[in-house]
Amino acid sequence: MTRTLIRNGLVITATDELTADVLVEDEKVVALADPALAESWSADTAIDATGMYVVPGGVDAHTHMEMPFGGTTAADTFETGTRAAAWGGTTTIIDFAIQSVGGSLREGLDAWHGKADGNCAIDYAFHMILADVNEGSLKEMEALVGEGVTSFKLFMAYPGVFYSDDGKILRSLQKGAETGGLIMMHAENGIAIDVLVEQALAKGHTDPRYHGEVRHALLEAEATHRAIKLAQVAGAPIYIVHLSATQALAQVAAARDEGYNAFAETCPQYLFLSTDDLGRPGFEGAKYVCSTPLRPAEHQAALWRGLRTDDLSVVSTDHCPFCFKGQKDMGIGDFSKIPNGLPGVETRMDLLHQGVVDGHISRRRWIEIASATPAKMFGLYPRKGTIAPGSDADIVIYDPAATQVHSAQTHHMAVDYSCYEGRETTGKVRTVLSRGRVIVDGGEYRGKAGDGTFLSRDTCQYLR
Amino acid sequence: MTRTLIRNGLVITATDELTADVLVEDEKVVALADPALAESWSADTAIDATGMYVVPGGVDAHTHMEMPFGGTTAADTFETGTRAAAWGGTTTIIDFAIQSVGGSLREGLDAWHGKADGNCAIDYAFHMILADVNEGSLKEMEALVGEGVTSFKLFMAYPGVFYSDDGKILRSLQKGAETGGLIMMHAENGIAIDVLVEQALAKGHTDPRYHGEVRHALLEAEATHRAIKLAQVAGAPIYIVHLSATQALAQVAAARDEGYNAFAETCPQYLFLSTDDLGRPGFEGAKYVCSTPLRPAEHQAALWRGLRTDDLSVVSTDHCPFCFKGQKDMGIGDFSKIPNGLPGVETRMDLLHQGVVDGHISRRRWIEIASATPAKMFGLYPRKGTIAPGSDADIVIYDPAATQVHSAQTHHMAVDYSCYEGRETTGKVRTVLSRGRVIVDGGEYRGKAGDGTFLSRDTCQYLR
Amino acid sequence: MTRTLIRNGLVITATDELTADVLVEDEKVVALADPALAESWSADTAIDATGMYVVPGGVDAHTHMEMPFGGTTAADTFETGTRAAAWGGTTTIIDFAIQSVGGSLREGLDAWHGKADGNCAIDYAFHMILADVNEGSLKEMEALVGEGVTSFKLFMAYPGVFYSDDGKILRSLQKGAETGGLIMMHAENGIAIDVLVEQALAKGHTDPRYHGEVRHALLEAEATHRAIKLAQVAGAPIYIVHLSATQALAQVAAARDEGYNAFAETCPQYLFLSTDDLGRPGFEGAKYVCSTPLRPAEHQAALWRGLRTDDLSVVSTDHCPFCFKGQKDMGIGDFSKIPNGLPGVETRMDLLHQGVVDGHISRRRWIEIASATPAKMFGLYPRKGTIAPGSDADIVIYDPAATQVHSAQTHHMAVDYSCYEGRETTGKVRTVLSRGRVIVDGGEYRGKAGDGTFLSRDTCQYLR
Amino acid sequence: MTRTLIRNGLVITATDELTADVLVEDEKVVALADPALAESWSADTAIDATGMYVVPGGVDAHTHMEMPFGGTTAADTFETGTRAAAWGGTTTIIDFAIQSVGGSLREGLDAWHGKADGNCAIDYAFHMILADVNEGSLKEMEALVGEGVTSFKLFMAYPGVFYSDDGKILRSLQKGAETGGLIMMHAENGIAIDVLVEQALAKGHTDPRYHGEVRHALLEAEATHRAIKLAQVAGAPIYIVHLSATQALAQVAAARDEGYNAFAETCPQYLFLSTDDLGRPGFEGAKYVCSTPLRPAEHQAALWRGLRTDDLSVVSTDHCPFCFKGQKDMGIGDFSKIPNGLPGVETRMDLLHQGVVDGHISRRRWIEIASATPAKMFGLYPRKGTIAPGSDADIVIYDPAATQVHSAQTHHMAVDYSCYEGRETTGKVRTVLSRGRVIVDGGEYRGKAGDGTFLSRDTCQYLR
Repeated sequence: MTRTLIRNGLVITATDELTADVLVEDEKVVALADPALAESWSADTAIDATGMYVVPGGVDAHTHMEMPFGGTTAADTFETGTRAAAWGGTTTIIDFAIQSVGGSLREGLDAWHGKADGNCAIDYAFHMILADVNEGSLKEMEALVGEGVTSFKLFMAYPGVFYSDDGKILRSLQKGAETGGLIMMHAENGIAIDVLVEQALAKGHTDPRYHGEVRHALLEAEATHRAIKLAQVAGAPIYIVHLSATQALAQVAAARDEGYNAFAETCPQYLFLSTDDLGRPGFEGAKYVCSTPLRPAEHQAALWRGLRTDDLSVVSTDHCPFCFKGQKDMGIGDFSKIPNGLPGVETRMDLLHQGVVDGHISRRRWIEIASATPAKMFGLYPRKGTIAPGSDADIVIYDPAATQVHSAQTHHMAVDYSCYEGRETTGKVRTVLSRGRVIVDGGEYRGKAGDGTFLSRDTCQYLR
Repeated sequence: MTRTLIRNGLVITATDELTADVLVEDEKVVALADPALAESWSADTAIDATGMYVVPGGVDAHTHMEMPFGGTTAADTFETGTRAAAWGGTTTIIDFAIQSVGGSLREGLDAWHGKADGNCAIDYAFHMILADVNEGSLKEMEALVGEGVTSFKLFMAYPGVFYSDDGKILRSLQKGAETGGLIMMHAENGIAIDVLVEQALAKGHTDPRYHGEVRHALLEAEATHRAIKLAQVAGAPIYIVHLSATQALAQVAAARDEGYNAFAETCPQYLFLSTDDLGRPGFEGAKYVCSTPLRPAEHQAALWRGLRTDDLSVVSTDHCPFCFKGQKDMGIGDFSKIPNGLPGVETRMDLLHQGVVDGHISRRRWIEIASATPAKMFGLYPRKGTIAPGSDADIVIYDPAATQVHSAQTHHMAVDYSCYEGRETTGKVRTVLSRGRVIVDGGEYRGKAGDGTFLSRDTCQYLR
Repeated sequence: MTRTLIRNGLVITATDELTADVLVEDEKVVALADPALAESWSADTAIDATGMYVVPGGVDAHTHMEMPFGGTTAADTFETGTRAAAWGGTTTIIDFAIQSVGGSLREGLDAWHGKADGNCAIDYAFHMILADVNEGSLKEMEALVGEGVTSFKLFMAYPGVFYSDDGKILRSLQKGAETGGLIMMHAENGIAIDVLVEQALAKGHTDPRYHGEVRHALLEAEATHRAIKLAQVAGAPIYIVHLSATQALAQVAAARDEGYNAFAETCPQYLFLSTDDLGRPGFEGAKYVCSTPLRPAEHQAALWRGLRTDDLSVVSTDHCPFCFKGQKDMGIGDFSKIPNGLPGVETRMDLLHQGVVDGHISRRRWIEIASATPAKMFGLYPRKGTIAPGSDADIVIYDPAATQVHSAQTHHMAVDYSCYEGRETTGKVRTVLSRGRVIVDGGEYRGKAGDGTFLSRDTCQYLR
Repeated sequence: MTRTLIRNGLVITATDELTADVLVEDEKVVALADPALAESWSADTAIDATGMYVVPGGVDAHTHMEMPFGGTTAADTFETGTRAAAWGGTTTIIDFAIQSVGGSLREGLDAWHGKADGNCAIDYAFHMILADVNEGSLKEMEALVGEGVTSFKLFMAYPGVFYSDDGKILRSLQKGAETGGLIMMHAENGIAIDVLVEQALAKGHTDPRYHGEVRHALLEAEATHRAIKLAQVAGAPIYIVHLSATQALAQVAAARDEGYNAFAETCPQYLFLSTDDLGRPGFEGAKYVCSTPLRPAEHQAALWRGLRTDDLSVVSTDHCPFCFKGQKDMGIGDFSKIPNGLPGVETRMDLLHQGVVDGHISRRRWIEIASATPAKMFGLYPRKGTIAPGSDADIVIYDPAATQVHSAQTHHMAVDYSCYEGRETTGKVRTVLSRGRVIVDGGEYRGKAGDGTFLSRDTCQYLR
């Protein structure tokens, strides 16, 4: 048995802030104690966290490692991507396994297990993308819930690829209600968007910024409303992914006011970037092409407010990086061919801490949206998402005063640009423990591929 | 030249109530005058309207005469249906010409002209149902607007029959914005409803009342919201047909509060009937199967309120009668095979007057929703919908104190049942003039098939 | 008997636009007729209105002629003010008689009759300001309703002057519900505002622009909500005067959505002026001091939208002019001593027509908010507010193409400045008939003091 | 040093549920530990909590011990009331010290210190009632905040007693914003209510049920809206006490949606009782007279929903008991003379646990609304409201399966009736620790008067 004692830090969880020592035995937290009491305790390793925050490792509930998309593949593998996550203070990711059209969930899940197994720096779990809703795949949902894949993503966007019609969505929601599987929704009206894409290209509007114009905020609001209404008909909860538009947020807020279990996540890019970036000169805007798209800067304040009111409950990254050279450039002359996605898994905790520094959210709320709530939402709590006796010792020792400048030169994601190139933020990861082992410390990566294991998840623990 | 003078009645229009004489020359109203002034005027015919209301003839903006549906055909022909309309004080109908899938608008319109021409008792116009939105039919919209067919109906319900997907809807709305053609929407999520239909039948839920259950109010609200958002993206006004659910009304009201040109009609059946009727014992409920379906009785108060607040601007009938014997009974054992539709063209004005008697609306609002606004909405004003110099002399002399008992025994619609069998209402048509000619008077029909002519319409006059 | 025939104009009422001739006998309209029919008619006077609008004279439901306020008196007398109104196309005003604290309604009403009698250029009526709600004055409301003073104004502002507390307001509303008297409300939280005034002055914030800051938009919204809730408790309709803030409008809209009889007026100054004017350099801003105050310019769009949605039903002037020299300057060094009020009775019809030209409202809506609805709201319809057989021949012949530049040099109000000095608008009054007599024509005033008579009013005709 | 170890219970806090041992040294929690780790620990006292919940003691943020009201005094003294609280699992109360009209805050606070000092069974703190807002008392607020009295209650009800007008409220809110003092509001429009009281009595409506009728739900909604708007003008947070009406809740929810720091508490009586109780035959209803009043039963579901959505953040008791005999009967023949208030300090935790059993809220939410949030709201966290190293060892060992029948025969409050006489609930306090000492255990009270000490509080920790 290995004992690690983290001394004198400020332990911050979703609800508490207290100066306490944290005792870890092997992979688990076994005690929180008053420093005076713990002074006498012995440990194999003692970590002095004086002046530091001691927080539960981040849980990033939305990543796409080595995901095939539009004829290419997301640049981070499970190995590089999870290592970058660790560098950034995230100790759990939930990635999306994908069912092929015509294929089974099982095949998709097995393929993703194959990609991840033995390669991850941190623990990981899977959601399942339902690309082909039919009797067979609906039936398979039951089995997957049984083995800890308890959430299923559907797309109202991308007709001909991932798109499901409203009948398939309704059936999936019904099955979700029956099995406890949580339906996650990419809520954009893809059928209407495709008309606008075609019209834009026909008018010669081929630059990256038109990506933002055709993916109209009202079409996100529309799909969000539709998804919620279908969920209400099915009697199921629903989780909206990567919400970016004020008008879509209003739909979630309205449903929540009525007491429905409608949830939404947003992503750091919607809080810190805008159509100003998408409209950068030349083809530079391609670096900022993701879906839902970046919105005009005035949406940011509404999203921060949504985080304060809990109408937005989670911040994930939708990490899905494509290199500017060789990938994003597939869309020169046709924005619709730019692979959709941004790098982000490494920078989420820091950007949200910047939100604390900027006064948008409190420290506890930072941990709640980045760690505790995603863990609860997706059935990982209290194993992940908190620091308490019995929880996994996924712990980040965070220096709230250190500053850093973001850059592709220094980041650890396998992508040739940073969305935040040159931007300085305050706060920085100092040490990361994953299930009790120190994997990042003092600017050095001390883990290895395969450290991370697959997490079988419970069903949603965030229903009210 | 023929002069008719209607003396001493209370002339009621959408805004005015005044004791005045109305002078008609040939087909037109040529003067409203103080009775003292008009006393000296000579006329070929003088009608004493003392104690009577003198109102503009009703404009029923939603009828389906001899419409093919589900393997049968609506029971009223243009001849029988328009005659029944005249009996009930309606002097204009706007019927729906139908494009066949694979066919052109022109072919559909020609077919409907063929059915109506020479057969109508009153003036008529056409909306066009777009069943096959494509480059060709979108292009044809321009021509149709040019010849007075200025409104186009789309369906979010009935997949495989009339259904258009959101891309087709968006394109149609864009073309509407461009041409001035007003898009009318059957707003129910038919894709989702079809799932519920299939599931209900699989559970042996085959009775008529399940028709109401599967066509969930939230699925009307959803589609209404979606239609409005697509219209906003297109920059087009939109008109929701046969709105029946409180939740759908809330969507229209919200859009109108924001100043959008979103309009809706409801129908008398939603104001006077309910799921109690749909759930009548045996197969009796089939008499009340229409789509959108009847709702629980508590929706009625919300609809009356919507009529007072102008969130509902028009009351049409959606007249589409099927005989109980030989037509409705096609659905014994499978509610989804019951032809959708109710008779109503004859009873609208009386039922709405009953709404006046019951204190739901004022007399002026009665005329506004039944005559003036539909005329404005569909480009017929002031030719139809008012009594003023220059307007067509479509005039109803209405006895506000007479009572009548509704019955299939006595009505003039070619259908073997009445939705209001045995119900007594107060108020009754005494005399009807259509373009200056008396066609109904004192319980006698004095017109003939072919009296009515086709009306070429302007574009919507109700935008704000 | 004198016959006047107005030929070939475009007659515009709240609902109709038609080319018709208008026949007037003595004081009344006796016929509207097709010009072809009327061609043969003889008349003492024939007015050619070709190319002109023929509209019902304006009804200004909110004026304060020669009103004592803050130690001075509004600059227009009934003689000068009503003459200016006539010049601007307004043929009816409803002025506010004032009860003194400690005095009876009767005394106040008699005093105002004394001021107006024999002096007015156009017809006039009275509302009654309740400055002292008690058993006696509540009792008197019944009698006043009986003699045609059917509306009563209360103040939530001006503590110690006109202010009524919520108990008095509730009692007045209850009496309104009982008698049919409509309660009009100056909705600003005067108690809270007085605190802010005191604090502003203590900080040396004495300039006119602080008048706008202390009269916070939220305090208008608050009072508006409170007035509506008290009305709901009393079961009474309510009419909010001079609404200027978006947030207050939202309160009215919410109540109206629920079907309540809550009404509001705004004024041209809130549609065309803003805090930019109030903040003009030096003491210039004093010209724009009125209560409720001018708001930031972004409120204007919301108010125009409210006029389109009928959440704002009436545009009145709140005409209450004070000369810049000798009156407004009482407040140099202390904005709270600036007499509250602006001139406007002459410019309302023109400014609203400019709203038509600018695309904010339609021509019919122009007449509705400026003439028809105020007449209905305050029980003068159809005597005033429309052109129909039997209505008073208060008719304006309006040249829609003429332009004019507003200026104190040329206006007819007895005040030394214009709020719109130098502003050009399109549209101009050509001829004004008051009860059949031409009182303004071709730039000449042809009436005389005493032409106008007192109007005994019915109760509100705008309830739904 | 005394060590107490609570073994093997399910520790429930606002966010966590974990099986852990809790180590207490003297008055403080010093560790939470895995039971396996703690097995070896020694302690003076070991408490076996197997099968039990181990929860932070309740924080009742709204009590009125021995409060003078309407010529009598609330029946519980600090001694009897705090002892009853302890029996019911509440280990902290925040009582209301009262400023007399004409008196200083200091005098009021001193008087309340005098009543409580040496008499309390559990820890206590004070809010201060501002009955006389003036320069002096506003100034005193600063000092009180400095000594841990950080919240101040104002009344929009009870004119002539506690009532403050809107100016005084605004000034207090401004001072609250300046000092960090949180303004708490009794939000009912007392001025309007007094009119309705007078009218009811005049009509002979003297029974207790009229207490509910005159205190109209809309007048609670009105005052709630007004309080929030005044707070927004002042830039201050606000806390609405004892919210009972759906319409008032809607106001709080709307403000919270916009991101404002508006908070509200409700009380168990509004969740479990209704106007059915107030309307009990004879004078029995007097037992249920409190203000805000009980509402029709349909409000209960909305309040539970508000607790789930966090639009209601706290459940307090408003404990203010008056005996049926000798106190409540002062109002026989005149409901307005019935002392307002109910007993409740003992039953809150159990009734809310019943809410868990009934599926209204989760276990964690139970602790959040009854302990953690009130502690945060009123500056006592993490000393009170959680179980964590460093927090006070105010711990309740709760048997979730035990049942009890509520009765005045068995309760410990000094009042002769129970609002829940004969009602059975599931869940019961087994053991209560106050600052480390067992004061209730196994049906025996083991503490004494004076155990409880005054708590100096921080300012609100619940702002967002």
